[in-house]
Amino acid sequence: MKKPHILVLGAGFAGIEFCKRIDGERFDVTLVDRQNHHLFQPLLYQVASSGLAVPEIAQPIRTILSGKKGLQILMDEAVGIDLRAKKVELRRQTIQYDYLLLAFGAVTGYFGNNQWARHAPGLKTVKDATRIRQSILYAYEQAETCEDDLEQRRLLTTVVIGGGPTGVELAGAFAELARHSLARDFSNVDPERSKVILIEAGDRVLGHMDKRMSEAALRQLRALGVDVRLNTRVENIDEGVVEIEGERIEAANILWGAGVEAHPLTRTLGVELSRGGKILVESDLSVPGFDEVFALGDIVDLVDAKGVRVPGVSPAAMQMAKHVASCFNGGCFEKTPAERKAFTYWDKGTMATIGRSKAVAEVKSFRMRGFIAWLAWLFVHLVFLIGFRNKVVVLFQWAYSYLTYRKGARIIHSAEDLDNPSVSKENDPLPRVGE
Amino acid sequence: MKKPHILVLGAGFAGIEFCKRIDGERFDVTLVDRQNHHLFQPLLYQVASSGLAVPEIAQPIRTILSGKKGLQILMDEAVGIDLRAKKVELRRQTIQYDYLLLAFGAVTGYFGNNQWARHAPGLKTVKDATRIRQSILYAYEQAETCEDDLEQRRLLTTVVIGGGPTGVELAGAFAELARHSLARDFSNVDPERSKVILIEAGDRVLGHMDKRMSEAALRQLRALGVDVRLNTRVENIDEGVVEIEGERIEAANILWGAGVEAHPLTRTLGVELSRGGKILVESDLSVPGFDEVFALGDIVDLVDAKGVRVPGVSPAAMQMAKHVASCFNGGCFEKTPAERKAFTYWDKGTMATIGRSKAVAEVKSFRMRGFIAWLAWLFVHLVFLIGFRNKVVVLFQWAYSYLTYRKGARIIHSAEDLDNPSVSKENDPLPRVGE
Repeated sequence: MKKPHILVLGAGFAGIEFCKRIDGERFDVTLVDRQNHHLFQPLLYQVASSGLAVPEIAQPIRTILSGKKGLQILMDEAVGIDLRAKKVELRRQTIQYDYLLLAFGAVTGYFGNNQWARHAPGLKTVKDATRIRQSILYAYEQAETCEDDLEQRRLLTTVVIGGGPTGVELAGAFAELARHSLARDFSNVDPERSKVILIEAGDRVLGHMDKRMSEAALRQLRALGVDVRLNTRVENIDEGVVEIEGERIEAANILWGAGVEAHPLTRTLGVELSRGGKILVESDLSVPGFDEVFALGDIVDLVDAKGVRVPGVSPAAMQMAKHVASCFNGGCFEKTPAERKAFTYWDKGTMATIGRSKAVAEVKSFRMRGFIAWLAWLFVHLVFLIGFRNKVVVLFQWAYSYLTYRKGARIIHSAEDLDNPSVSKENDPLPRVGE
Repeated sequence: MKKPHILVLGAGFAGIEFCKRIDGERFDVTLVDRQNHHLFQPLLYQVASSGLAVPEIAQPIRTILSGKKGLQILMDEAVGIDLRAKKVELRRQTIQYDYLLLAFGAVTGYFGNNQWARHAPGLKTVKDATRIRQSILYAYEQAETCEDDLEQRRLLTTVVIGGGPTGVELAGAFAELARHSLARDFSNVDPERSKVILIEAGDRVLGHMDKRMSEAALRQLRALGVDVRLNTRVENIDEGVVEIEGERIEAANILWGAGVEAHPLTRTLGVELSRGGKILVESDLSVPGFDEVFALGDIVDLVDAKGVRVPGVSPAAMQMAKHVASCFNGGCFEKTPAERKAFTYWDKGTMATIGRSKAVAEVKSFRMRGFIAWLAWLFVHLVFLIGFRNKVVVLFQWAYSYLTYRKGARIIHSAEDLDNPSVSKENDPLPRVGE
């Protein structure tokens, strides 16, 4: 008898976890991702801030799921999904499915101001991270020979928009990079001139954590020299300029950490979406009206059985994958959504690192800050980073950076990429790579 | 009193070595490179074959020369050199010099067939290496879903042109990658179908070494399954096709390891050049007619005082740099070229690695092959790799690959680069990175 065919779109935390747990004897599974690797997103900001190399936080999907029965992996991209005909159009073929899992995650979102994307890149992909890294390192290289005072200040200014975990981690990492690593490298750049400004619309950073944690993070950021502006709304972003009420900030680098939204494919499904393009799933994570279709991870909008709105974080994505895999393995896919077990999110806690020995963490009512939170952060991220090789290399890179105050990946791979005006604003003919 | 100003163009082995050795108390030195990092070229083929990440073989120039007196480092590119006016035009400024050191190295050379460059990339830059890596990994991804027998064979075929060290190392590394690392990852790809063909016009590989070494290398390559074609001249290269006498080889990846030539800037100097654009320097490495201009490294054509033609290898570049730095530090720059000490090359030996436990090495009349040569190769490359951090990480990556038969950097960073027809021939719309 032919086994039922499950098609999984996306090899992020949810897609990988589902494929690990699904019973390959009973189902044929096809996993599709545009990339050949799974990316450990929580450390991507360290690639952007020159701490780690890309392969150190990426693992080939085929390696992670090596030897899994009944699984086929395709490097391809979904371009059209027809829920009624139960088929998905990829770039290179069209696939029929019995069950579909939508797990293609989030993209950087600009709350309707998509024209800002060119001037203020977000941090969701490898390309984002390497571009940001190169653009910031290159601005320092230019500052080194810049004779104009104002222009040099502009080159050394980085604005980070959004005081959530991404914004806080980026701002902290860049402040450290500027203060320790780069300051020693350049002779004409005064570290005092380099400036990181963090802009947050609300009245505190890390708004999803306890107030005391927000205050601790704010102190830690300020101790690193980050200029944190709370209650500050961005009015406009243009090439090298952020406009806030009453001020125009000129900055060579502007980074967007203020929001994400669901992958635009959700808008083509013809199902009801919430703000940000997320899918309003049933309690069992199925898509309303399509009992054989489930959504997992960052594209899901759900208030769970306990009344908690499930956040867009990797533990939630993995828990959803586990939930749906158990559903399949237990045969519940034959039941109606209402008969199936409802998903409940188990909050493992939340943490953010601000810099060397600086972090905040909370697990239920237990809170940590400073060095101990930072150690906990390191430990948790090493444990979840996939692959023994990567764990060892990343641990070594961290230890070395800790001891020397140096970041190891201060490499401008490919200066020609900087030509792209969304990251670099120089009209300057840029050095080409190689030849 | 103003110190004499030495301008150094290029931060390869020669440029870095010179800057380390020059007396910064007596000279002002400006070092210019298009990149912000020094690249350890001898390991670049391991980036191409998925063994290492780029930052692991690159080190920021500013870090290497950190604290050096009298040194200014510019990330910029020479676009015009006027030897008579003693000035160099960079992209962002023009610099006057008292003494000039030309050390900008070699580029891939096609012996007048520059139209082949699009179809058969060489391996000189980071971009070359990451493109080759991605193109080969991507061909395997395509082969996995390919239903057409001939097309699958084409996707799994890699042709390496040139049986010198670069060609031999690339061919060996790709044969290993295909046989061990990739074979296990794919379910529809038969490892037996994957093919690496090495084409050499002469009657042996590694023609610069002893005949017995060439034979050992040939045996080692064949043991890895490489199809070595000796006495075979390439007649034409087109998109995905190499034409040799009586045969048309179709291959998804064609790599050029058959030759390099001096950087094209040498042709603008108005001095006498040899074949391949190299500068015919005086015995002291100065440029004929310009006592204050020296050339170092791969752009030099010289038969030294002992009658040895100096090869284009990193030890020669470093020895030249040392020679010229001593000349400056000892005041000999005030003498005429004929009065200055002549350069003599000290041949430290030569080695090439073919794969896991396979290598050849010769030092004068002492020869090694197999495992012992391979250990010697590992040791020498670790010693010369710049930076303690990189040494440790690379050693670990090698040990891990040795134990697991897996290469750690099998990452397609940015599939959109593959759109470039010089590396990929697919007209296929390629998966974009991110979003």
